[in-house]
Amino acid sequence: MHGYRGKILRVNLTDHTWKVEDLDEKKALSYIGGRGLGSKIMAEEVDPNVDAFSPENKVIIATGPLTGTPTPAGGRYMVVTKSPLSGTIASSNSGGYWGSELKFAGYDLIILEGKSPKPVNVFIEDDKVELRDASHVWGKIVSETTEALAKEAPDKAKILCIGPAGEKLSKIAAVMNDINRAAGRSGVGAVLGSKNLKAIVVKGSSKPTIANPDKLKEVTKAARQNIKDNGVTGQGLPTYGTAVLVNIINEGGVFPTNNFQTTYFDKAENISGEHLAENFLIKRESCFACPIACGRYAKADDIEGGGPEYETIWAFGAACGVSDMKEVIKANYWCNELGLDTISAGVTIAAAMELYQRGKIKDNDIDEGLSLKFGDAKSMVEWTKKMGNREGMIGDKMAEGSHRMGEHFGMPEVAMAVKKLELPAYDPRGIQGQGLQYATSNRGGCHVRGYMISPEILGLPQKLDRFAIDGKAEWVKIFQDLTAYIDSAGLCLFTSFAIDAKGYADMISAVIGQEFSDADILEAGDRIWNLERNYNLKAGIDPSQDTLPKRLLEDPIPDGPSKGNKSRLSEMLPIYYNIRGWDESGIPKPETLQKLQVEA
Amino acid sequence: MHGYRGKILRVNLTDHTWKVEDLDEKKALSYIGGRGLGSKIMAEEVDPNVDAFSPENKVIIATGPLTGTPTPAGGRYMVVTKSPLSGTIASSNSGGYWGSELKFAGYDLIILEGKSPKPVNVFIEDDKVELRDASHVWGKIVSETTEALAKEAPDKAKILCIGPAGEKLSKIAAVMNDINRAAGRSGVGAVLGSKNLKAIVVKGSSKPTIANPDKLKEVTKAARQNIKDNGVTGQGLPTYGTAVLVNIINEGGVFPTNNFQTTYFDKAENISGEHLAENFLIKRESCFACPIACGRYAKADDIEGGGPEYETIWAFGAACGVSDMKEVIKANYWCNELGLDTISAGVTIAAAMELYQRGKIKDNDIDEGLSLKFGDAKSMVEWTKKMGNREGMIGDKMAEGSHRMGEHFGMPEVAMAVKKLELPAYDPRGIQGQGLQYATSNRGGCHVRGYMISPEILGLPQKLDRFAIDGKAEWVKIFQDLTAYIDSAGLCLFTSFAIDAKGYADMISAVIGQEFSDADILEAGDRIWNLERNYNLKAGIDPSQDTLPKRLLEDPIPDGPSKGNKSRLSEMLPIYYNIRGWDESGIPKPETLQKLQVEA
Repeated sequence: MHGYRGKILRVNLTDHTWKVEDLDEKKALSYIGGRGLGSKIMAEEVDPNVDAFSPENKVIIATGPLTGTPTPAGGRYMVVTKSPLSGTIASSNSGGYWGSELKFAGYDLIILEGKSPKPVNVFIEDDKVELRDASHVWGKIVSETTEALAKEAPDKAKILCIGPAGEKLSKIAAVMNDINRAAGRSGVGAVLGSKNLKAIVVKGSSKPTIANPDKLKEVTKAARQNIKDNGVTGQGLPTYGTAVLVNIINEGGVFPTNNFQTTYFDKAENISGEHLAENFLIKRESCFACPIACGRYAKADDIEGGGPEYETIWAFGAACGVSDMKEVIKANYWCNELGLDTISAGVTIAAAMELYQRGKIKDNDIDEGLSLKFGDAKSMVEWTKKMGNREGMIGDKMAEGSHRMGEHFGMPEVAMAVKKLELPAYDPRGIQGQGLQYATSNRGGCHVRGYMISPEILGLPQKLDRFAIDGKAEWVKIFQDLTAYIDSAGLCLFTSFAIDAKGYADMISAVIGQEFSDADILEAGDRIWNLERNYNLKAGIDPSQDTLPKRLLEDPIPDGPSKGNKSRLSEMLPIYYNIRGWDESGIPKPETLQKLQVEA
Repeated sequence: MHGYRGKILRVNLTDHTWKVEDLDEKKALSYIGGRGLGSKIMAEEVDPNVDAFSPENKVIIATGPLTGTPTPAGGRYMVVTKSPLSGTIASSNSGGYWGSELKFAGYDLIILEGKSPKPVNVFIEDDKVELRDASHVWGKIVSETTEALAKEAPDKAKILCIGPAGEKLSKIAAVMNDINRAAGRSGVGAVLGSKNLKAIVVKGSSKPTIANPDKLKEVTKAARQNIKDNGVTGQGLPTYGTAVLVNIINEGGVFPTNNFQTTYFDKAENISGEHLAENFLIKRESCFACPIACGRYAKADDIEGGGPEYETIWAFGAACGVSDMKEVIKANYWCNELGLDTISAGVTIAAAMELYQRGKIKDNDIDEGLSLKFGDAKSMVEWTKKMGNREGMIGDKMAEGSHRMGEHFGMPEVAMAVKKLELPAYDPRGIQGQGLQYATSNRGGCHVRGYMISPEILGLPQKLDRFAIDGKAEWVKIFQDLTAYIDSAGLCLFTSFAIDAKGYADMISAVIGQEFSDADILEAGDRIWNLERNYNLKAGIDPSQDTLPKRLLEDPIPDGPSKGNKSRLSEMLPIYYNIRGWDESGIPKPETLQKLQVEA
């Protein structure tokens, strides 16, 4: 098949051996690649009840058939493993250039097994694979690690690594690549840390073949034009980055503030994308083959680096009551350098601030010179560093994520999280479909498994009433399924503002040379969704976890443009289960799994 | 004054001393900054008859008042010196991040004087300045130099350097910054080489102040919207980079092919921006604070790097009869690494190919294994390397540029150059105004001193008949004056597709806090233009050099969409002189200089 490279690199970290296996084409066609195929391999090879940090857990780094092809924004890879944070199957997604380079080296996936006796790096240059001692970079921050390994690697090699947070098994640690791109969520970086794997360096020199280059040219040309003509992908994201959302979401009164205690931040303008562009932006950055270039690169005082993204600005901004963009840029910088997920890191600090507000953390618990007051921007930056390095009692607890930290201080409900994964920057009380999506996402509180902000706020592909619940279950299912496909194909989710299922079907058909219809795309997504669900159920993730933090279900929004609303999850959930072909308790019916050919 | 930092760093390379001087505010207001102020200082301090490689020549690295501010694409700096290629005053312009970083370090300009006894680097970190031995990086290519110096420098320092071509005094050597951005033209890199200066490393931690931040916000918001709404800056350049022009210019029959022997390249599609995007593009890149992001980054086999730009693609493509984009990407890569101007390098190889075609270079002159046949792409890449390293007899001659190489082989007219500077990618026989601009540009055969392609081909701000000569002298003057201002302010010329003189006036007024009108902007440009002209006249650049290669004046275009046309320069030149306030022989009249307050 075209598009794929047809090879899997399997690395045994325990005994430092590796082998190359053929890709199973039938399985690839069913599960596409990336998130889908990675999850399928997890389901086949890893017991759902495995401890995430045990050598029996595996990490599958998976590209899709469109990764490294000329399709727009086709440069993504997935880190699939069992999450130490949520206990669910995890699949964290990143852009940049590492994923496409893995394809250029000739591999679709890497399967990492076992545990190295001591820190190790994997070097890949086409068919040369080598495991090398990593003791000289163990403990180093991400930029220093990357620079040091670049010296040992072929020119322009691409580098993926973990930071100190991953080494120290922080449950909110990210896998980083190309210095400032992150497979951020679910603590996947800590699983690499548990395996003593610091970095994977890759350099390739050949490209995936295309089944029908003329057709692909025609299809991608149309896709690029759609991306240009679309207000979000052609104007909003290129001009202001993802932070273009700050003012939009705040004006809607769904911008969670002070750990979701309120939903309108009166100083949002100071942390807006506009303010970033006008005062701190150095450049825009694009990932592999991306026509949007939403990436930012900013400088504050003597600190500069990639980002900050919208979610990061919110997590270190409104969620912590902070309106100082300089300090947000610094907190973001330290997350990238230490290898922390910015959403979980910011929301965990916000939760700690609420624990202090409610007297659960006392003044004498707090490290000297710091505070846990909402709005203390400088302390927030210091907490970020302490969290990433597990310094001090509170920093060490923060590294476990908001739920476990809350439990420690006797108030687990302080965690604004679903399945222990911290929620992102949209209050579901004023966006009903997004709430259903948070509650049912297979990796927990996540916005990018079905981005209902698109129809409910941005009006794409059509504007829905965000306060209504009618039809939301149907929309959530379609968005979840389409996203599962996109994540599996190796594309960026942002293309979906401008491209529909038919457009995606045309692209993969032209690349791999097998005809896909829009229905095939959605069915593949549905299959992947059910496989993940099934894995989670076996892992003991009970459907009772398909819920939201109590505050969002019971406390109406106190003021602002969405005042008086709360999540009506309980009304939507049964409809959603039914539409999914699941029984009333949320278990996929045998006929559903059979129809999708997912093994029970 | 705001916008400026008010400080000049003067470095004496002979005795390795330096001092900081105050910026003369009155002079800055008259000559704006960048190209204008740098040229003014050259006029005051450097004898126009100086040998370019003598220690008495100086290099002025100059930012403008808008460099490093939040104005769109306000990140440029200029290298002003006497050119070893043309003997004119040179001012080569580059983007990236180095220029803004110099502002952040607290300086508007650096004046480099004398000659170091041995290779040296200048390190600047705010008010700390240090000259350090450069023997370990002397001889290294640009990426290796940059990586090596990054290790010695503060985190995220920005690095400007020359490559081997500059060290070896190639008259077409560039100054490089941020690895792949070039102050390319006029051989400015060789002047640094002649001074034994390898690199300037800079890191800064404060920003220029803004006189009226609210006004600037309003003005830049409007400017950004204009840039987005404009077809060239909002669609063409972001989507396909400058290479979007390949098909447009070729379809107009003004795409010089085989060293300007014909003007339509039947294989242009293979070297088009579309083909680049679909097959080789890794990412788009933006310079400091740029909303356009026209920069490309491409990969061919195991070579990857910044670019190629339109002019580069043309110079190594059609000009050499080459239609293999992979080899164009490689030639571009080697120009960046060796520090060569891509236009001059490609056109010089094209000229060598014509010398071979006409029997001036013989088979036994040619290095073993290579050819000088038009279309031999692989040889072209090898010639690029030889030129940059001055390897072999022909490589050594190529390093002198096309005119001197042509002279050596008894056919100086083979050089498609004005004032010995190689012409760029638009045949002036089918674009009359552009021909006048080439002939009168103060640095020689250059497209970016008054980009008449904008009105004559792209229809911005209005569409002119490209074959007509009526009114062209007036348009050329306005474009030259406006460009002189833009180059002096520190902005990128590409903003001028979407912003007019009034827009520029509003920006500088808000930044520096002195009211500028659109007329003031153009007057400043006129002043700068006349200062440069005056310097050139004193340097012995006779008005008889305001001409074009004989081929373009005498031989009609042989075929294609512009068939039968030749340049009507002689009809336009007297009108231009008159409009400029110059006498019939092309000498500025005393009253013109007086009116503009340029010293005679």
